[in-house]
Amino acid sequence: MSTQPLEFWFEFASTYSYPAAMRIETLAGRAGVAIAWRPFLLGPIFQAQGWNDSPFNLYPAKGRYMWRDLERLCEKHGLPYARPTIFPQRSIFAARLALAAIDEPWLPALVRGIYVANFAEGADLSAPDTLTRVLEGLGQTPAAWLDRAQSQPVKDALRANTEGAQALGVFGAPTFLAQGEVFWGGDRLEDALAWQLRHA
Amino acid sequence: MSTQPLEFWFEFASTYSYPAAMRIETLAGRAGVAIAWRPFLLGPIFQAQGWNDSPFNLYPAKGRYMWRDLERLCEKHGLPYARPTIFPQRSIFAARLALAAIDEPWLPALVRGIYVANFAEGADLSAPDTLTRVLEGLGQTPAAWLDRAQSQPVKDALRANTEGAQALGVFGAPTFLAQGEVFWGGDRLEDALAWQLRHA
Repeated sequence: MSTQPLEFWFEFASTYSYPAAMRIETLAGRAGVAIAWRPFLLGPIFQAQGWNDSPFNLYPAKGRYMWRDLERLCEKHGLPYARPTIFPQRSIFAARLALAAIDEPWLPALVRGIYVANFAEGADLSAPDTLTRVLEGLGQTPAAWLDRAQSQPVKDALRANTEGAQALGVFGAPTFLAQGEVFWGGDRLEDALAWQLRHA
Repeated sequence: MSTQPLEFWFEFASTYSYPAAMRIETLAGRAGVAIAWRPFLLGPIFQAQGWNDSPFNLYPAKGRYMWRDLERLCEKHGLPYARPTIFPQRSIFAARLALAAIDEPWLPALVRGIYVANFAEGADLSAPDTLTRVLEGLGQTPAAWLDRAQSQPVKDALRANTEGAQALGVFGAPTFLAQGEVFWGGDRLEDALAWQLRHA
């Protein structure tokens, strides 16, 4: 098999995607592995499983544990953290923005900026101000990118990604695809990278 | 806080408890950490969440992923593996047997033997023959221990453990309790041990 990039399937509302999104560029860079960034929406996938909310809200014991676990993970990896007031966030605009900028060299920084806004700064991802501020922080012109994020090709690309995730058997985020192998969960990032290197 | 043993909450039917049960004694021994073995039943806990089967059966995409992931984990840790024909197993007799032998020096070997019977040998955990064979392999007299496993105090102890798990907020297995902190999932064993050492 020829070497494909490591695919990183993520959802901006997903708690465990946050540490993964913050860590992946450094770890993959160190390993010499290219990343394909794949923003998608978990909502339709959860709905197909009969859930109309995050399982962390539907199953309170699991939710309570997750918030404490996320806090510990952020401490372990030296990441800023403040429990969001909104969960899950309405992440569709953020996901479209990431797809609008998918070929830009500052995409990884944009992704991290959006996650920090969600999981460290208590921002509302559905508020245009939030994405504007993140884009400004990267020295980009917000209006142009926010317009492009609302274009039909970008909307179609997000729908295609979400269908692609479903076709891949994705049922949660983050998910990694390493040379045909699916790894689920931020705690599998190292395993996915090791698999990628071993099967390149 | 005085040092408590690391509590290992496990269920013999639980797939991800298998690698954890196989690894914990070596890892804890190396770290100088004592283990409190806590067999319990997930069934009542799943029922309280509205599930009448394993979530890996209720959510097929998650189940398909889990079986592949378990196979990879066993390969990674050098553990024997053959996908069980029965899932989930009826684990109540095995859990009672572990509680009957909870103070025996061969308890860890018994636990591993039962897990190997389930996840590598295709055995039926509810068949008396299976537990008989495991006990014989440890040089124990099966009849005496199987009788003891059916005694009222042992039945009560398993009920108390399952209620204790619920009180702790346990929602899956394996779960570790390290100096008051809950860690869920076999992939958190190292984190739980590190926490135990740091907060001893």
